Amino acid sequence: MQGQAQQQAYDRGITIFSPDGRLYQVEYAREAVKRGTASIGIRAEDGVVLVADKRARSPLMEPASVEKIHKADDHVGVASAGHVADARQLIDFARRQAQVNRLRYGEAIGIETLTKEITDHIQQYTQIGGARPFGVALIVGGIENGEPRLFETDPSGTPYEWQALSIGANRSDVREFLEENYSEDIGIEAAIGLALEALAEVNDDDGLTPDGVGVATIEVDDEDFHERSAEEKESILADHDLLASKEDDAAEDATGDADESGTDEGGADE
Amino acid sequence: MQGQAQQQAYDRGITIFSPDGRLYQVEYAREAVKRGTASIGIRAEDGVVLVADKRARSPLMEPASVEKIHKADDHVGVASAGHVADARQLIDFARRQAQVNRLRYGEAIGIETLTKEITDHIQQYTQIGGARPFGVALIVGGIENGEPRLFETDPSGTPYEWQALSIGANRSDVREFLEENYSEDIGIEAAIGLALEALAEVNDDDGLTPDGVGVATIEVDDEDFHERSAEEKESILADHDLLASKEDDAAEDATGDADESGTDEGGADE
Amino acid sequence: MQGQAQQQAYDRGITIFSPDGRLYQVEYAREAVKRGTASIGIRAEDGVVLVADKRARSPLMEPASVEKIHKADDHVGVASAGHVADARQLIDFARRQAQVNRLRYGEAIGIETLTKEITDHIQQYTQIGGARPFGVALIVGGIENGEPRLFETDPSGTPYEWQALSIGANRSDVREFLEENYSEDIGIEAAIGLALEALAEVNDDDGLTPDGVGVATIEVDDEDFHERSAEEKESILADHDLLASKEDDAAEDATGDADESGTDEGGADE
Amino acid sequence: MQGQAQQQAYDRGITIFSPDGRLYQVEYAREAVKRGTASIGIRAEDGVVLVADKRARSPLMEPASVEKIHKADDHVGVASAGHVADARQLIDFARRQAQVNRLRYGEAIGIETLTKEITDHIQQYTQIGGARPFGVALIVGGIENGEPRLFETDPSGTPYEWQALSIGANRSDVREFLEENYSEDIGIEAAIGLALEALAEVNDDDGLTPDGVGVATIEVDDEDFHERSAEEKESILADHDLLASKEDDAAEDATGDADESGTDEGGADE
Amino acid sequence: MQGQAQQQAYDRGITIFSPDGRLYQVEYAREAVKRGTASIGIRAEDGVVLVADKRARSPLMEPASVEKIHKADDHVGVASAGHVADARQLIDFARRQAQVNRLRYGEAIGIETLTKEITDHIQQYTQIGGARPFGVALIVGGIENGEPRLFETDPSGTPYEWQALSIGANRSDVREFLEENYSEDIGIEAAIGLALEALAEVNDDDGLTPDGVGVATIEVDDEDFHERSAEEKESILADHDLLASKEDDAAEDATGDADESGTDEGGADE
Amino acid sequence: MQGQAQQQAYDRGITIFSPDGRLYQVEYAREAVKRGTASIGIRAEDGVVLVADKRARSPLMEPASVEKIHKADDHVGVASAGHVADARQLIDFARRQAQVNRLRYGEAIGIETLTKEITDHIQQYTQIGGARPFGVALIVGGIENGEPRLFETDPSGTPYEWQALSIGANRSDVREFLEENYSEDIGIEAAIGLALEALAEVNDDDGLTPDGVGVATIEVDDEDFHERSAEEKESILADHDLLASKEDDAAEDATGDADESGTDEGGADE
Amino acid sequence: MQGQAQQQAYDRGITIFSPDGRLYQVEYAREAVKRGTASIGIRAEDGVVLVADKRARSPLMEPASVEKIHKADDHVGVASAGHVADARQLIDFARRQAQVNRLRYGEAIGIETLTKEITDHIQQYTQIGGARPFGVALIVGGIENGEPRLFETDPSGTPYEWQALSIGANRSDVREFLEENYSEDIGIEAAIGLALEALAEVNDDDGLTPDGVGVATIEVDDEDFHERSAEEKESILADHDLLASKEDDAAEDATGDADESGTDEGGADE
Repeated sequence: MQGQAQQQAYDRGITIFSPDGRLYQVEYAREAVKRGTASIGIRAEDGVVLVADKRARSPLMEPASVEKIHKADDHVGVASAGHVADARQLIDFARRQAQVNRLRYGEAIGIETLTKEITDHIQQYTQIGGARPFGVALIVGGIENGEPRLFETDPSGTPYEWQALSIGANRSDVREFLEENYSEDIGIEAAIGLALEALAEVNDDDGLTPDGVGVATIEVDDEDFHERSAEEKESILADHDLLASKEDDAAEDATGDADESGTDEGGADE
Repeated sequence: MQGQAQQQAYDRGITIFSPDGRLYQVEYAREAVKRGTASIGIRAEDGVVLVADKRARSPLMEPASVEKIHKADDHVGVASAGHVADARQLIDFARRQAQVNRLRYGEAIGIETLTKEITDHIQQYTQIGGARPFGVALIVGGIENGEPRLFETDPSGTPYEWQALSIGANRSDVREFLEENYSEDIGIEAAIGLALEALAEVNDDDGLTPDGVGVATIEVDDEDFHERSAEEKESILADHDLLASKEDDAAEDATGDADESGTDEGGADE
Repeated sequence: MQGQAQQQAYDRGITIFSPDGRLYQVEYAREAVKRGTASIGIRAEDGVVLVADKRARSPLMEPASVEKIHKADDHVGVASAGHVADARQLIDFARRQAQVNRLRYGEAIGIETLTKEITDHIQQYTQIGGARPFGVALIVGGIENGEPRLFETDPSGTPYEWQALSIGANRSDVREFLEENYSEDIGIEAAIGLALEALAEVNDDDGLTPDGVGVATIEVDDEDFHERSAEEKESILADHDLLASKEDDAAEDATGDADESGTDEGGADE
Repeated sequence: MQGQAQQQAYDRGITIFSPDGRLYQVEYAREAVKRGTASIGIRAEDGVVLVADKRARSPLMEPASVEKIHKADDHVGVASAGHVADARQLIDFARRQAQVNRLRYGEAIGIETLTKEITDHIQQYTQIGGARPFGVALIVGGIENGEPRLFETDPSGTPYEWQALSIGANRSDVREFLEENYSEDIGIEAAIGLALEALAEVNDDDGLTPDGVGVATIEVDDEDFHERSAEEKESILADHDLLASKEDDAAEDATGDADESGTDEGGADE
Repeated sequence: MQGQAQQQAYDRGITIFSPDGRLYQVEYAREAVKRGTASIGIRAEDGVVLVADKRARSPLMEPASVEKIHKADDHVGVASAGHVADARQLIDFARRQAQVNRLRYGEAIGIETLTKEITDHIQQYTQIGGARPFGVALIVGGIENGEPRLFETDPSGTPYEWQALSIGANRSDVREFLEENYSEDIGIEAAIGLALEALAEVNDDDGLTPDGVGVATIEVDDEDFHERSAEEKESILADHDLLASKEDDAAEDATGDADESGTDEGGADE
Repeated sequence: MQGQAQQQAYDRGITIFSPDGRLYQVEYAREAVKRGTASIGIRAEDGVVLVADKRARSPLMEPASVEKIHKADDHVGVASAGHVADARQLIDFARRQAQVNRLRYGEAIGIETLTKEITDHIQQYTQIGGARPFGVALIVGGIENGEPRLFETDPSGTPYEWQALSIGANRSDVREFLEENYSEDIGIEAAIGLALEALAEVNDDDGLTPDGVGVATIEVDDEDFHERSAEEKESILADHDLLASKEDDAAEDATGDADESGTDEGGADE
Repeated sequence: MQGQAQQQAYDRGITIFSPDGRLYQVEYAREAVKRGTASIGIRAEDGVVLVADKRARSPLMEPASVEKIHKADDHVGVASAGHVADARQLIDFARRQAQVNRLRYGEAIGIETLTKEITDHIQQYTQIGGARPFGVALIVGGIENGEPRLFETDPSGTPYEWQALSIGANRSDVREFLEENYSEDIGIEAAIGLALEALAEVNDDDGLTPDGVGVATIEVDDEDFHERSAEEKESILADHDLLASKEDDAAEDATGDADESGTDEGGADE
């Protein structure tokens, strides 16, 4: 009890450190990320793979409107987890930065440069009062100098580079799965399979549906962001034996009105 | 009790996350939406239907002044639920965006573009202090590239695309009804009927009155927003056997001074 | 008790929603309206009638200085109830809007347009912090395109159109009286009588005095705001057998120093 | 006790309404007015009379420096009660408004116009946070179109027109006296006498001193503000048998250090 | 106890009135004045006298650096009591106003004008939030139109004119002494003696030292501010039999580190 | 308990001193530094050495993205400990200052000058409200006038110059180790060894890994910032017998999800 | 206890006076000064002496980086005690003022003028909210018109002139020592000795070290700021028999990590 009371004393705003040097509001923003459905990024030898859990909460909702994977520039994709509206703000910010870079320097923005411009923007919201931190994490992936790069941004504004990572729900379990199964020389199609397997592993449902997942790749060859169509996704899921039976699909969609918190919690029970 | 006390500690402003990563003020704004009378949107094959519960709280009040359905541009209609004055602000914002688009690009604004400009505007009020979130949800419907599109905005600033949806009072019940009865190949007149049936299903009263509902359509053919007249509505209600008997009408209007909360609660008991 | 304590937690400013989605400060501003003396508006076939209870709290006070009915433009009158100084701000705002309209478009402002400019202005004070809502309601009446129109603004910034309405003290009782006695084809002189009867019905005193009521009309014929003189009022009151005897008049004026709250409570006991 | 605790919850700033629609900070500012010594205004047939209790708290203090009656323009006088420094701010504001009117329109400002510019200024301090209301009331008197006019401003920013009124200490008692003794056809010299009698009636001391009262008139004839000299005041007091004996004068002055609250409490006991 | 708790509820800032209409923060600022050593002003027939208690808290401190009497312009002197740094701000303000007057109008500023510019400046700090009142009182003395004038400013921003006054410690006792001994036809040298006697009367020490008092005069003859030298002061003190014996002087200086509160408490015990 | 309660009363913002003259928020920011992994700086005869503990929290994370050592200008390196995103802000600030110096004066910025510009920037965040202090300490090392210089910045904004120092976790133990083993005439390669030995001394793990440490030098000869490659680091660690066995490496990397606090806590257990 | 609770009620910001007229935050800032190591200033016949306790908290720290004595202009030195980073801000401010004076008037700034510009700057931070007072005191010494001058600034913004003074730790004891031993006709070398003796008197250690003290002089002859070298200091300490034995030196330096509070507490135990 006392610990809790003490914690409450220092968690009312981002301009206050706790006695042990923590920023509780930033840590709570991380909880908003955890409430979001998972997104996974994998750096393959020949490109970057972004996969996201995007199950809709009603069969009447357009799957395409569950925004988890975004194109930031021709050569950059971003997957998000957490507060959807916050993610949109950061994506818009990223797009503007990418455009400005093209205008100013006549070339595509570097993936690391872009990531750090985003995290510096996020940091401002953790030091100056009058606002709250962004309740969202991003996976920023793309091609830079012919090499695939894969970054994470978190609510504190720290950038990390990864070979493979997951954000959002079940982050630890997915990471464990990736650590056991990832190897640097993985090809892009195998990477898609690995990411979907990781997603299926932690999902409660019996398999995945084409509409319930998002898959995008940016390959070294053409340096171009591509989202896979429903047909392509169905074929991949079938290949990996991850395709949910029709009954499951219906069941999943019918979970109903549970989520209205603004985070991308999809069909997950609360 | 403890849970409640704890909740109170984090719900005093939109610049504070709760320890589990929630924004209580945004969730409370969703409650303001639920206090409003229902609005329903359905995407038909040949257009978009907007229907709203707009029962007045006195027979002396002009039915037309119960603002639930608005024209945002020639090809876009908006239905709202929740805080009426907040809805007006967002409608005004939407109209200005639509005008600017016509001036700048010489063409009608896209439904998705317009929706996202609205949600990005809403998001600002959930992150920067000194204001409160908008206590209103919108259904934005219209024709884009010859296709009917139907979107929702909520108080967190998240955009969703739907085939059919409801906002405001009894949202879950109406959605359930729509999920059971909607099919993608529905025609626009059938869609009007379906929406009115959904509304009647959850209403306490014995049927609907022409003045007590609003009906608007934007059809693919002419891409033009039309509100149905009282005569048209009476005829439709009669066709669907939803027309209230005169006695009910009077009873409904006489519920009196119950609502003065600023939300569009109409004749509903509190 | 608990309910009250809980309420207190969410009623300290307009930037805070309560857990059930209410804005307590706006609701309290409505209480300020209820503390004000009544104003009544009636839309007749041939014009609009504004009537107000404007009893002074001392025989030494100039009746004309009890401001309840205001001319906003040649064709628009406004009656108020609640915080007097707040009413003055909104009237000034309305006058400027009307002037601007004449300058910009060379024509008289529409009654609905004017009302909505006022309510949009009011709404700002319910969403942005650092101020309080306006503690006043207005009845805006006038002629637009040759038709009488009658609107209400409330502290939430919601506009309503009415056939007949009352704001301020005893709102429910007056409305009930109006609902029972109003008919759309009422003439303007009959409407004046009806409004005065409604006022007398709910007043504790035994009749009305010419100085204790304000009567203004805007008729379709000349689209011009007219306040009735004391003589005219006396004659009307006598015609309707509503004229207070002299003794009552004195008694009324002598209620003394009761009201100093800034609302237009007139001679009413507290 | 509970009532008091509840009151405290809503009286910490002017941006908060209480649950019953009151603005406690404005009401407390009225208490500051009541702490000030009385000022009285009377509208005579041929001019306006301003009289004020301006007893000094030490014989060493210059009577002229007890500021209760001010000249705002040639044809306008202002008497105040309450917070002295606040009064000075409003007087300065009034003088600037009067000057601007002369510059802009080449004519003297109307008494009603001037009063309402003052009250609109006061209102701002009751709605926007970050400041406190003005703790002062004013009597604004002057000649407009050849007619004497007499107004009151209070801390809520409400303007009232009076035939005769009093502000500050013992307001109710003085008003009662005026109501009993005032008649509209009173002459200016009789009005001075009436005002001084009212003042003497409620004063604890045995009579008034020339230095302890301020008397100013603005007459219809010359439309010019005149303060009466000590000799004139002594003569008037003697005529009305209100002149204090010398011993009382000394006693009054010796009340000493009691008042240092910033209000014009003069020699009154606390 | 209850009274105290209640008081605490309303004394946290200058934007809050207490229920009885008081501004506690202004009253507390007056306490800061009382904590300062005394300053005395006397208006003689032929000039103005300013005298101040300026005992240093260590023999190593330069007596000249205990700032109690300041030259504001050639013809104006100011004595202060209370918060030293605040006094400096107001003196600087006064000097700028005096300079501006000379530049703009080519003449020396009036004493009353200057005083009221200072008090209006002080008032701002008692109404607008985000700052605290000035914790200092001033005596402003000088020659205007050949006449000696003597004013006081207090933390509320009220100006008073005096024949003779004291501010700071023991204000009541000194005033009583002055009331008993002052007469209007006093000459300037006699006035110096009277002021020093008043100071000695309330001091605990056995006599005054030349360094422990400040003496300045502005005479009608030359309208020029003069501070008396140590020799002149010693001679005056000896003439009035007020000179402390050497032993007392040492004792006084050795009171040591007692005062570090920022007010000019000098050698006084706390 | 009481001490703790008292502390809490003064630690909510950087605009509040505690009664004993401390700034708790600055002290809490120092705790954020202690939560970060260690960085070590040593001034050798022929250059400056920066060494940092940069163990990643997952084998999938790119070691290079654990930012502990930064190039600020050709001749300046900066090592950090604490809040990563805050460090990035200060590094950016330092880079801009270095650039501006080159542009303005055509020469490299001095190490002391640069450090003090950083600390002055930090100080602002400890005195003006509305923000929090920087939760990071920096070691700024470089060559100035041919001499190696080594500085520290802390969250209070104080600059210190050192011969050898450590920031972050285990600061006291590392300093003790350095005090015992450092001598001024140490060569740069020996200094690298000393720093790594100090790091190994306080680490729980059995040896260091090339990826788990960062090593940078700025030598007097070329005044150029160089980071050592993984191969060079492996060779140095082997030379000093500090190389972890492969098993330890794996174990270290697998500590998993422990750290998500935004500080650079690496693989350390919490 | 009660006293303490009461104190807490008024010490949360510099915009609040306590009921007895005190500014607690300014008094707490004085405590920050007392936490700093001592600085001493002495005005000799032929110049000004500044001496400071600048023991480092580790033998690895550069003694020169313990900033206690600063050159503000050629002819002005400043010694500080308290918050180091705050001192740097004021020194920078002082340097800019001195430069501006040379640019504007073509001459060296006066010592009194400079001091008062600093104290006026400090005062701002004690009256306007949103910041905290400066937690530092300064001794400002220099030559003005051929005369040595010596001033103190404190956190309230009050300037004092002294013959000899001390700030920081043990202020009272050092002052007592100075009061007993200072005479106005002291020569500059004797003054250095006196200051060092005063420092040694209150130090716990057995003697002083050359690196542990700072000594600077500004002499009348050349009006130039000079800091004494380590050799000169060693010689002076030896002459006065104040030189610590080598063992003590080591012991002193080894006190270790005690101080990290941002004040210049040096080797002092806490």
